[in-house]
Amino acid sequence: MYTQQEIDFALRGAVQIFSKEGLVDRLNSGKRLKIKLGCDPSRPDLHLGHTVILRRLKALQDMGHEIIFLIGDFTGMIGDPSGKSKTRPKLTLEETRENGVSYLQQVGKVLDPNKATIAYNSEWLNAMNFADVIGLASKYTLARTLERDDFTKRFKENQPISLHELLYPLAQGYDSVALHADVEVGGTDQTFNLLVGRELQRDYGQTPQEVITFPLLVGLDGKEKMSKSLDNYIGIDEPAAIMYEKAMRVPDSALLEYFVLTTDISEEEAKEIIQKDVVEAHRVFGKEIIRMYHGEAAIEEAVSRYATVASGAIPDKMATALVPLNDEKTIGICDLVRICGLAPSNSEARRLVQGKGIKIDNVVIEDVHAKIACTDGMVVSKGKNKFVRVEVEK
Amino acid sequence: MYTQQEIDFALRGAVQIFSKEGLVDRLNSGKRLKIKLGCDPSRPDLHLGHTVILRRLKALQDMGHEIIFLIGDFTGMIGDPSGKSKTRPKLTLEETRENGVSYLQQVGKVLDPNKATIAYNSEWLNAMNFADVIGLASKYTLARTLERDDFTKRFKENQPISLHELLYPLAQGYDSVALHADVEVGGTDQTFNLLVGRELQRDYGQTPQEVITFPLLVGLDGKEKMSKSLDNYIGIDEPAAIMYEKAMRVPDSALLEYFVLTTDISEEEAKEIIQKDVVEAHRVFGKEIIRMYHGEAAIEEAVSRYATVASGAIPDKMATALVPLNDEKTIGICDLVRICGLAPSNSEARRLVQGKGIKIDNVVIEDVHAKIACTDGMVVSKGKNKFVRVEVEK
Repeated sequence: MYTQQEIDFALRGAVQIFSKEGLVDRLNSGKRLKIKLGCDPSRPDLHLGHTVILRRLKALQDMGHEIIFLIGDFTGMIGDPSGKSKTRPKLTLEETRENGVSYLQQVGKVLDPNKATIAYNSEWLNAMNFADVIGLASKYTLARTLERDDFTKRFKENQPISLHELLYPLAQGYDSVALHADVEVGGTDQTFNLLVGRELQRDYGQTPQEVITFPLLVGLDGKEKMSKSLDNYIGIDEPAAIMYEKAMRVPDSALLEYFVLTTDISEEEAKEIIQKDVVEAHRVFGKEIIRMYHGEAAIEEAVSRYATVASGAIPDKMATALVPLNDEKTIGICDLVRICGLAPSNSEARRLVQGKGIKIDNVVIEDVHAKIACTDGMVVSKGKNKFVRVEVEK
Repeated sequence: MYTQQEIDFALRGAVQIFSKEGLVDRLNSGKRLKIKLGCDPSRPDLHLGHTVILRRLKALQDMGHEIIFLIGDFTGMIGDPSGKSKTRPKLTLEETRENGVSYLQQVGKVLDPNKATIAYNSEWLNAMNFADVIGLASKYTLARTLERDDFTKRFKENQPISLHELLYPLAQGYDSVALHADVEVGGTDQTFNLLVGRELQRDYGQTPQEVITFPLLVGLDGKEKMSKSLDNYIGIDEPAAIMYEKAMRVPDSALLEYFVLTTDISEEEAKEIIQKDVVEAHRVFGKEIIRMYHGEAAIEEAVSRYATVASGAIPDKMATALVPLNDEKTIGICDLVRICGLAPSNSEARRLVQGKGIKIDNVVIEDVHAKIACTDGMVVSKGKNKFVRVEVEK
């Protein structure tokens, strides 16, 4: 029996669980559970977005369960037969195996790869013939398949859906049957496919897997989900100084989510840190991820290197503003901008902040409610040319 | 080069041709064409409905082309994996082969089985693996598939469509690719599937097959298509007397179609025969099909046996009506019924005829415009109890 705290930690950030009771019962059953995560067969380059789930798998692994990374090499080896997608070249068997090994090496930064298993779905999907596919396809209706969000949307908008696309959720679901998975985890965008696995297992006479979905981490742009191709990511293999610099660019509005989904700092503590001083909160986050992926020793150098680089963009001579702080030794960002003479009014200051025109020590501040714990020498800037040095009113 | 007459004869009764020019060019190309007809793998029992197409294949065979009977044993061996249809039991490989041989024997009554080929689609469909199926399915969109009438209807009415059903038209279409078919013929209910074959051949780099569709012959009930399970059929293996009796039951409204689609009598001649006397027209049709499937010698016995059986249902003593004929020596059915005292007015007579309540010499007459060439001793009856013997007014 696990404590509520242990279970809550393993499920931290989870969006949906099918079913909560079933999952808790199974975690507590004493059986070593098979926990499946489906992985893209293309060359991986893990970033913080991937760690959202990997960190939960680490907690489940620590509880004694078996983590299975299911590499979807079957579809990878087919490529896109409709020839529509240029970004999906065919992979050879060798390439998919190399990518699998590379994946396992990289996840070693988050969990113990020696206690995890890797599986390739071509092993059973390649062995299926047309009659097997018909048997599989007979277990699911068109109407159910069209409930998947992207299909619904494309169908309604008369965008073409090739028949083979309808088979992919079944293939993915069948992986759970082949693995006898007890639990499957995935991003919220995979909810439909994970539930197909649940239903197919039932059809094939197995106990349906429990399903846990986790949020997709938003990227540094604050809009799209984090991905390498959109260049809005923080890679877990990146140098510490780059990590720190990127951490400073996490949108204020996403910072709490980054703390909760990618670090062990508790939600309450993170809220407090952000509430107190949003610039300092970025620094705390940056240091924390360096600690996790490069170790404590790497923090100091990264921070000082960042300061040097950042200061290089700031001129030596500039105006100085005398800034009063409140009892908590902070000041609201809009007041600060106005007092520095960068805006004639609070409403104009607000507009500037929302438009990402204001930086403090080179960090964009976009939350109009952000509180800044000003210190002497801190630089507030507007655009690329206006700089004001802060002097705290004593 | 074939004459227009030869081509018209081969295409007699065709509903749609894709494309007419393409087909004529290919027939005239001098090449021996592969002409495909898809056949059900269950035990066949050929009836006049089947002969509509078989007779056209006979004409094409006489032109020197190769007829290929494609037995759809692949799906037959799978049965219905969704378990919805009880009428589709799984067939073994042996059973499908026996049924194929039986099919070829039966079609021998219409065309030359020695100049026809039999093929089983399990030979190539069984060899396809999941990746092949995905490749095949990628060539067709969901929207196109849903254009098939029955899918459109079921989808609109929220009736479940299993995903495997969407694969069947592709499997059937792929048969044309595997066979390198030049022409495919089928019933109008197969139009969609035949056109899929056309498109898949193009996708696989072949010249798309020409497609010819033929009407589905209506059964003796005048409503549903002829089929053994509905017991509204005239089997080509049935005894001559039974054939003749069933010919008498062909609905007046369908008689011209029966002449055109199942005999060599020309449409003009058939129209004339029916126009002159609809009862006699039934007799001509009955004699014609006996001639085709049992030979000239069998006609006399069948006709006299029918007369004996029919007269058995007619009492010896009955009223007599004096019937005047027009210049063509006929009388309209409604006038006849009224004059025989079986209806007080022409409108009531009309109602009786439409309700199939009137028989002449035991043949139901349902066309209110039918002209009857009365002869002395002919018996007009209403229901099961009222009989009137005709005496022609001289």
